[in-house]
Amino acid sequence: MLLAPLERLTEALTRLPSIGPKTARRLAYHLLDAPEGEISELLGALSELQAKVLRCTVCGNYTEQDTCAICRSERRDRTRLCVVAHPRDIATFERTGEYRGLYHVLGGLISPIDGIGPERLRLRELEARVQSGEFQEIVLATDPTVAGEATAMYLEDTLAEFPGELTRLAQGLPAGSGFEYTDEITLGRALSRRQRLSR
Amino acid sequence: MLLAPLERLTEALTRLPSIGPKTARRLAYHLLDAPEGEISELLGALSELQAKVLRCTVCGNYTEQDTCAICRSERRDRTRLCVVAHPRDIATFERTGEYRGLYHVLGGLISPIDGIGPERLRLRELEARVQSGEFQEIVLATDPTVAGEATAMYLEDTLAEFPGELTRLAQGLPAGSGFEYTDEITLGRALSRRQRLSR
Repeated sequence: MLLAPLERLTEALTRLPSIGPKTARRLAYHLLDAPEGEISELLGALSELQAKVLRCTVCGNYTEQDTCAICRSERRDRTRLCVVAHPRDIATFERTGEYRGLYHVLGGLISPIDGIGPERLRLRELEARVQSGEFQEIVLATDPTVAGEATAMYLEDTLAEFPGELTRLAQGLPAGSGFEYTDEITLGRALSRRQRLSR
Repeated sequence: MLLAPLERLTEALTRLPSIGPKTARRLAYHLLDAPEGEISELLGALSELQAKVLRCTVCGNYTEQDTCAICRSERRDRTRLCVVAHPRDIATFERTGEYRGLYHVLGGLISPIDGIGPERLRLRELEARVQSGEFQEIVLATDPTVAGEATAMYLEDTLAEFPGELTRLAQGLPAGSGFEYTDEITLGRALSRRQRLSR
Protein backbone atom coordinates (compact mmCIF):
# COMPACT_ATOMS: atom_id res chain seq x y z
CA MET A 1 0.00 0.00 0.00
CA LEU A 2 2.96 2.36 0.51
CA LEU A 3 4.23 4.52 -2.33
CA ALA A 4 7.34 3.09 -4.00
CA PRO A 5 9.68 5.93 -2.87
CA LEU A 6 8.39 5.65 0.71
CA GLU A 7 8.80 1.87 0.57
CA ARG A 8 12.34 2.19 -0.72
CA LEU A 9 13.40 4.68 1.96
CA THR A 10 11.73 2.58 4.67
CA GLU A 11 13.72 -0.45 3.52
CA ALA A 12 17.00 1.49 3.38
CA LEU A 13 16.39 2.81 6.92
CA THR A 14 15.52 -0.66 8.25
CA ARG A 15 19.06 -1.76 7.39
CA LEU A 16 20.41 0.65 10.04
CA PRO A 17 21.10 -0.76 13.51
CA SER A 18 18.30 -0.46 16.10
CA ILE A 19 15.82 0.80 13.46
CA GLY A 20 12.93 -1.64 13.02
CA PRO A 21 10.32 -1.52 10.25
CA LYS A 22 7.88 0.58 12.34
CA THR A 23 10.49 3.19 13.28
CA ALA A 24 11.74 3.25 9.68
CA ARG A 25 8.24 3.94 8.39
CA ARG A 26 7.77 6.70 10.96
CA LEU A 27 11.10 8.30 9.99
CA ALA A 28 10.21 8.14 6.28
CA TYR A 29 6.86 9.84 6.91
CA HIS A 30 8.55 12.40 9.12
CA LEU A 31 10.97 13.29 6.32
CA LEU A 32 8.09 13.72 3.88
CA ASP A 33 6.28 16.08 6.25
CA ALA A 34 9.44 17.88 7.39
CA PRO A 35 10.37 21.43 6.38
CA GLU A 36 11.94 21.82 2.94
CA GLY A 37 15.58 21.79 4.05
CA GLU A 38 15.60 18.67 6.21
CA ILE A 39 15.95 16.06 3.46
CA SER A 40 18.50 18.28 1.68
CA GLU A 41 20.59 18.59 4.84
CA LEU A 42 20.56 14.81 5.31
CA LEU A 43 21.46 14.31 1.64
CA GLY A 44 24.32 16.79 1.95
CA ALA A 45 25.65 15.21 5.12
CA LEU A 46 25.55 11.69 3.66
CA SER A 47 27.25 12.77 0.42
CA GLU A 48 29.96 14.55 2.36
CA LEU A 49 30.52 11.49 4.54
CA GLN A 50 30.84 9.31 1.46
CA ALA A 51 33.13 11.71 -0.37
CA LYS A 52 35.38 13.12 2.31
CA VAL A 53 36.02 10.53 4.99
CA LEU A 54 39.14 8.40 4.45
CA ARG A 55 41.05 5.95 6.60
CA CYS A 56 44.32 7.07 8.25
CA THR A 57 47.14 5.22 6.48
CA VAL A 58 48.96 4.79 9.80
CA CYS A 59 46.38 3.79 12.42
CA GLY A 60 43.18 3.11 10.45
CA ASN A 61 41.15 5.89 12.17
CA TYR A 62 38.76 8.04 10.15
CA THR A 63 40.31 11.16 8.73
CA GLU A 64 39.80 13.78 6.05
CA GLN A 65 43.53 13.78 5.25
CA ASP A 66 46.14 11.11 4.59
CA THR A 67 46.83 10.63 8.30
CA CYS A 68 44.49 11.37 11.19
CA ALA A 69 44.68 14.26 13.66
CA ILE A 70 45.95 11.98 16.45
CA CYS A 71 48.78 10.44 14.38
CA ARG A 72 49.78 13.94 13.20
CA SER A 73 49.62 15.55 16.64
CA GLU A 74 52.85 16.51 18.34
CA ARG A 75 51.20 16.52 21.74
CA ARG A 76 50.58 12.76 21.90
CA ASP A 77 52.72 10.30 23.84
CA ARG A 78 54.37 8.28 21.03
CA THR A 79 55.63 5.57 23.39
CA ARG A 80 52.14 4.16 23.99
CA LEU A 81 49.88 2.34 21.54
CA CYS A 82 46.25 1.48 22.24
CA VAL A 83 44.81 -1.31 20.06
CA VAL A 84 41.06 -0.99 19.40
CA ALA A 85 38.54 -2.78 17.22
CA HIS A 86 36.79 0.17 15.57
CA PRO A 87 37.45 3.87 14.83
CA ARG A 88 34.42 4.72 16.99
CA ASP A 89 36.28 3.29 20.00
CA ILE A 90 38.91 6.00 19.57
CA ALA A 91 36.26 8.71 19.96
CA THR A 92 34.96 6.90 23.06
CA PHE A 93 38.39 6.69 24.71
CA GLU A 94 39.25 10.27 23.77
CA ARG A 95 36.17 11.48 25.64
CA THR A 96 37.53 10.00 28.88
CA GLY A 97 40.60 12.25 28.70
CA GLU A 98 42.62 9.44 30.34
CA TYR A 99 44.84 8.48 27.41
CA ARG A 100 47.36 10.57 25.49
CA GLY A 101 49.09 7.91 23.38
CA LEU A 102 48.53 6.68 19.82
CA TYR A 103 45.96 4.18 18.51
CA HIS A 104 45.78 1.23 16.16
CA VAL A 105 42.46 0.17 14.65
CA LEU A 106 42.07 -3.58 14.01
CA GLY A 107 38.95 -3.13 11.91
CA GLY A 108 36.96 -5.72 13.87
CA LEU A 109 37.21 -8.57 16.35
CA ILE A 110 38.01 -12.23 15.82
CA SER A 111 34.68 -14.06 15.72
CA PRO A 112 34.71 -17.58 14.23
CA ILE A 113 30.89 -17.75 14.42
CA ASP A 114 30.67 -14.77 12.04
CA GLY A 115 33.49 -16.17 9.91
CA ILE A 116 35.91 -13.42 10.94
CA GLY A 117 39.42 -14.82 11.42
CA PRO A 118 42.64 -12.95 12.32
CA GLU A 119 43.48 -12.52 8.60
CA ARG A 120 40.60 -10.02 8.34
CA LEU A 121 42.13 -7.70 10.94
CA ARG A 122 44.88 -5.10 10.45
CA LEU A 123 47.45 -7.30 12.23
CA ARG A 124 50.32 -7.08 9.75
CA GLU A 125 50.12 -3.29 10.01
CA LEU A 126 50.16 -3.61 13.81
CA GLU A 127 53.24 -5.84 13.81
CA ALA A 128 55.04 -3.50 11.41
CA ARG A 129 54.28 -0.51 13.65
CA VAL A 130 55.35 -2.36 16.80
CA GLN A 131 58.63 -3.46 15.18
CA SER A 132 59.58 -0.08 13.76
CA GLY A 133 58.24 2.04 16.62
CA GLU A 134 59.59 2.99 20.00
CA PHE A 135 56.55 1.85 21.96
CA GLN A 136 57.04 1.15 25.65
CA GLU A 137 53.47 0.02 26.22
CA ILE A 138 50.75 -1.61 24.14
CA VAL A 139 47.23 -1.43 25.61
CA LEU A 140 44.91 -4.17 24.38
CA ALA A 141 41.62 -2.27 24.47
CA THR A 142 39.06 -4.69 23.04
CA ASP A 143 35.74 -4.87 24.82
CA PRO A 144 34.98 -7.51 27.50
CA THR A 145 32.80 -9.68 25.23
CA VAL A 146 33.60 -13.20 23.95
CA ALA A 147 34.96 -11.82 20.66
CA GLY A 148 36.85 -9.04 22.47
CA GLU A 149 38.46 -11.49 24.89
CA ALA A 150 39.36 -13.92 22.08
CA THR A 151 40.97 -11.10 20.11
CA ALA A 152 42.94 -9.88 23.13
CA MET A 153 44.22 -13.43 23.75
CA TYR A 154 45.23 -13.75 20.11
CA LEU A 155 47.05 -10.40 20.28
CA GLU A 156 48.81 -11.46 23.47
CA ASP A 157 50.22 -14.45 21.54
CA THR A 158 51.08 -12.40 18.46
CA LEU A 159 52.88 -9.77 20.52
CA ALA A 160 54.65 -12.25 22.84
CA GLU A 161 58.05 -11.01 21.65
CA PHE A 162 57.21 -7.37 22.42
CA PRO A 163 59.80 -6.24 24.99
CA GLY A 164 57.69 -3.44 26.50
CA GLU A 165 54.63 -3.62 28.70
CA LEU A 166 51.50 -5.34 27.39
CA THR A 167 48.39 -4.19 29.29
CA ARG A 168 44.63 -4.69 29.16
CA LEU A 169 41.78 -2.47 30.33
CA ALA A 170 40.80 -3.13 33.93
CA GLN A 171 37.70 -5.24 34.49
CA GLY A 172 35.55 -4.82 37.57
CA LEU A 173 32.63 -2.85 38.85
CA PRO A 174 31.28 -0.08 36.61
CA ALA A 175 31.21 3.36 38.23
CA GLY A 176 28.00 4.36 39.94
CA SER A 177 26.11 1.06 39.78
CA GLY A 178 24.88 -0.71 42.89
CA PHE A 179 25.61 -4.39 43.56
CA GLU A 180 21.98 -5.31 43.00
CA TYR A 181 22.27 -4.21 39.37
CA THR A 182 25.59 -5.96 38.74
CA ASP A 183 25.68 -9.40 37.09
CA GLU A 184 27.56 -12.28 38.74
CA ILE A 185 30.35 -12.46 36.17
CA THR A 186 31.26 -8.81 36.71
CA LEU A 187 31.02 -9.20 40.48
CA GLY A 188 33.13 -12.39 40.30
CA ARG A 189 35.83 -10.59 38.30
CA ALA A 190 35.76 -7.62 40.66
CA LEU A 191 36.46 -10.11 43.45
CA SER A 192 39.09 -12.27 41.73
CA ARG A 193 40.94 -9.20 40.38
CA ARG A 194 40.61 -7.21 43.60
CA GLN A 195 43.26 -4.54 43.94
CA ARG A 196 45.59 -4.15 46.90
CA LEU A 197 45.23 -0.81 48.63
CA SER A 198 48.50 1.05 48.89
CA ARG A 199 48.88 2.29 52.48
CA MET B 1 36.83 15.42 18.59
CA LEU B 2 34.56 14.06 15.83
CA LEU B 3 35.43 14.64 12.18
CA ALA B 4 33.41 17.47 10.62
CA PRO B 5 31.48 15.19 8.18
CA LEU B 6 30.64 12.76 11.02
CA GLU B 7 29.56 15.67 13.20
CA ARG B 8 27.36 17.07 10.45
CA LEU B 9 25.62 13.74 9.77
CA THR B 10 25.17 13.13 13.51
CA GLU B 11 23.46 16.52 13.83
CA ALA B 12 21.23 15.91 10.82
CA LEU B 13 20.19 12.52 12.23
CA THR B 14 19.49 13.99 15.69
CA ARG B 15 16.76 16.10 14.10
CA LEU B 16 14.79 12.92 13.33
CA PRO B 17 12.11 11.84 15.83
CA SER B 18 13.17 9.32 18.50
CA ILE B 19 16.85 9.60 17.48
CA GLY B 20 18.95 11.02 20.31
CA PRO B 21 22.58 12.18 20.04
CA LYS B 22 23.97 8.77 21.06
CA THR B 23 21.89 6.82 18.54
CA ALA B 24 22.71 9.40 15.88
CA ARG B 25 26.43 8.96 16.48
CA ARG B 26 26.08 5.18 16.36
CA LEU B 27 24.17 5.40 13.08
CA ALA B 28 26.76 7.74 11.56
CA TYR B 29 29.59 5.37 12.50
CA HIS B 30 27.60 2.43 11.21
CA LEU B 31 27.21 4.13 7.83
CA LEU B 32 30.96 4.78 7.66
CA ASP B 33 31.72 1.13 8.38
CA ALA B 34 28.89 -0.22 6.22
CA PRO B 35 29.44 -1.96 2.89
CA GLU B 36 29.99 0.33 -0.11
CA GLY B 37 26.39 0.39 -1.33
CA GLU B 38 24.61 1.29 1.90
CA ILE B 39 25.18 5.06 1.88
CA SER B 40 24.45 5.14 -1.86
CA GLU B 41 21.15 3.32 -1.37
CA LEU B 42 20.13 5.75 1.36
CA LEU B 43 21.16 8.71 -0.82
CA GLY B 44 19.16 7.31 -3.73
CA ALA B 45 16.08 6.66 -1.60
CA LEU B 46 16.17 10.17 -0.07
CA SER B 47 16.64 11.87 -3.45
CA GLU B 48 13.78 9.86 -4.92
CA LEU B 49 11.55 10.79 -1.99
CA GLN B 50 12.39 14.46 -2.45
CA ALA B 51 11.93 14.40 -6.22
CA LYS B 52 8.99 12.09 -6.79
CA VAL B 53 6.51 12.35 -3.94
CA LEU B 54 3.72 14.88 -4.46
CA ARG B 55 0.46 15.63 -2.66
CA CYS B 56 -2.80 14.40 -4.19
CA THR B 57 -4.65 17.49 -5.47
CA VAL B 58 -7.96 15.98 -4.33
CA CYS B 59 -7.42 14.46 -0.89
CA GLY B 60 -3.93 15.58 0.15
CA ASN B 61 -2.49 12.04 0.37
CA TYR B 62 1.04 11.33 -0.88
CA THR B 63 1.20 10.31 -4.51
CA GLU B 64 3.60 10.08 -7.42
CA GLN B 65 0.92 11.36 -9.82
CA ASP B 66 -1.51 14.27 -9.82
CA THR B 67 -4.09 12.31 -7.81
CA CYS B 68 -3.44 9.38 -5.48
CA ALA B 69 -4.19 5.71 -6.11
CA ILE B 70 -7.21 5.79 -3.76
CA CYS B 71 -8.84 8.84 -5.39
CA ARG B 72 -8.24 7.28 -8.83
CA SER B 73 -9.48 3.82 -7.92
CA GLU B 74 -12.82 2.66 -9.31
CA ARG B 75 -13.21 0.07 -6.59
CA ARG B 76 -13.66 2.57 -3.73
CA ASP B 77 -17.00 3.52 -2.21
CA ARG B 78 -17.38 7.17 -3.31
CA THR B 79 -20.28 7.83 -0.93
CA ARG B 80 -18.04 7.75 2.15
CA LEU B 81 -15.35 10.21 3.19
CA CYS B 82 -12.92 9.63 6.05
CA VAL B 83 -11.26 12.79 7.43
CA VAL B 84 -7.75 12.21 8.83
CA ALA B 85 -4.97 14.43 10.14
CA HIS B 86 -1.97 13.02 8.25
CA PRO B 87 -1.27 10.99 5.10
CA ARG B 88 0.32 8.30 7.32
CA ASP B 89 -3.11 7.74 8.92
CA ILE B 90 -4.42 6.61 5.53
CA ALA B 91 -1.80 3.85 5.40
CA THR B 92 -2.74 2.85 8.96
CA PHE B 93 -6.47 2.62 8.19
CA GLU B 94 -5.86 0.83 4.88
CA ARG B 95 -4.01 -1.93 6.75
CA THR B 96 -7.16 -2.70 8.77
CA GLY B 97 -9.06 -3.58 5.57
CA GLU B 98 -12.24 -2.22 7.24
CA TYR B 99 -12.79 0.86 5.09
CA ARG B 100 -13.38 1.13 1.34
CA GLY B 101 -14.34 4.82 0.99
CA LEU B 102 -12.33 7.93 0.15
CA TYR B 103 -10.12 10.08 2.41
CA HIS B 104 -9.47 13.72 3.13
CA VAL B 105 -6.19 14.81 4.76
CA LEU B 106 -6.42 17.86 7.03
CA GLY B 107 -2.65 18.26 7.26
CA GLY B 108 -2.63 18.46 11.05
CA LEU B 109 -4.82 18.94 14.12
CA ILE B 110 -6.06 22.09 15.79
CA SER B 111 -3.71 22.81 18.68
CA PRO B 112 -3.76 26.33 20.14
CA ILE B 113 -0.75 25.53 22.36
CA ASP B 114 1.36 24.90 19.24
CA GLY B 115 -0.20 27.89 17.48
CA ILE B 116 -2.08 25.72 14.99
CA GLY B 117 -5.54 27.13 14.31
CA PRO B 118 -8.22 25.87 11.89
CA GLU B 119 -6.89 28.17 9.15
CA ARG B 120 -3.79 25.95 8.89
CA LEU B 121 -5.86 22.86 8.00
CA ARG B 122 -7.25 21.87 4.58
CA LEU B 123 -10.79 22.82 5.62
CA ARG B 124 -11.83 24.88 2.61
CA GLU B 125 -10.91 21.92 0.40
CA LEU B 126 -12.98 19.67 2.66
CA GLU B 127 -16.04 21.91 2.49
CA ALA B 128 -15.73 22.17 -1.30
CA ARG B 129 -15.55 18.38 -1.60
CA VAL B 130 -18.50 17.87 0.73
CA GLN B 131 -20.63 20.40 -1.16
CA SER B 132 -19.87 19.07 -4.61
CA GLY B 133 -19.74 15.38 -3.71
CA GLU B 134 -22.40 12.76 -3.22
CA PHE B 135 -21.16 11.66 0.20
CA GLN B 136 -23.63 9.83 2.41
CA GLU B 137 -21.26 9.55 5.35
CA ILE B 138 -18.34 11.53 6.71
CA VAL B 139 -16.15 9.72 9.25
CA LEU B 140 -14.26 12.03 11.60
CA ALA B 141 -11.14 9.93 12.15
CA THR B 142 -8.87 12.09 14.29
CA ASP B 143 -7.10 10.37 17.15
CA PRO B 144 -8.48 10.36 20.71
CA THR B 145 -6.03 12.98 22.03
CA VAL B 146 -6.86 16.51 23.19
CA ALA B 147 -5.94 17.97 19.77
CA GLY B 148 -7.77 15.16 17.97
CA GLU B 149 -10.94 15.67 20.03
CA ALA B 150 -10.80 19.46 19.59
CA THR B 151 -10.43 19.07 15.82
CA ALA B 152 -13.34 16.60 15.64
CA MET B 153 -15.55 19.01 17.60
CA TYR B 154 -14.57 21.86 15.29
CA LEU B 155 -15.37 19.68 12.26
CA GLU B 156 -18.73 18.72 13.74
CA ASP B 157 -19.58 22.45 13.89
CA THR B 158 -18.21 23.17 10.41
CA LEU B 159 -20.14 20.27 8.89
CA ALA B 160 -23.36 20.91 10.83
CA GLU B 161 -25.26 21.48 7.57
CA PHE B 162 -24.12 18.16 6.08
CA PRO B 163 -27.33 16.19 5.38
CA GLY B 164 -25.72 12.72 5.51
CA GLU B 165 -24.36 10.78 8.46
CA LEU B 166 -21.53 12.25 10.49
CA THR B 167 -19.66 9.54 12.44
CA ARG B 168 -16.61 9.22 14.68
CA LEU B 169 -14.35 6.26 15.38
CA ALA B 170 -15.58 4.14 18.29
CA GLN B 171 -13.82 4.67 21.61
CA GLY B 172 -13.58 1.90 24.16
CA LEU B 173 -11.38 -0.99 25.15
CA PRO B 174 -8.44 -1.79 22.85
CA ALA B 175 -8.41 -5.36 21.54
CA GLY B 176 -6.44 -7.87 23.58
CA SER B 177 -5.63 -5.74 26.60
CA GLY B 178 -6.68 -6.78 30.11
CA PHE B 179 -8.51 -4.39 32.45
CA GLU B 180 -5.46 -4.14 34.69
CA TYR B 181 -3.55 -2.47 31.85
CA THR B 182 -6.35 -0.09 30.86
CA ASP B 183 -6.38 3.48 32.13
CA GLU B 184 -9.47 4.89 33.88
CA ILE B 185 -10.43 7.28 31.10
CA THR B 186 -10.57 4.46 28.56
CA LEU B 187 -12.46 2.24 30.98
CA GLY B 188 -14.84 5.10 31.78
CA ARG B 189 -15.56 5.69 28.10
CA ALA B 190 -16.03 1.97 27.50
CA LEU B 191 -18.68 2.07 30.23
CA SER B 192 -20.43 5.31 29.30
CA ARG B 193 -20.50 4.37 25.59
CA ARG B 194 -21.44 0.75 26.20
CA GLN B 195 -23.17 -0.85 23.26
CA ARG B 196 -26.52 -2.61 23.35
CA LEU B 197 -26.31 -6.25 22.31
CA SER B 198 -28.66 -7.08 19.47
CA ARG B 199 -30.54 -10.27 20.36
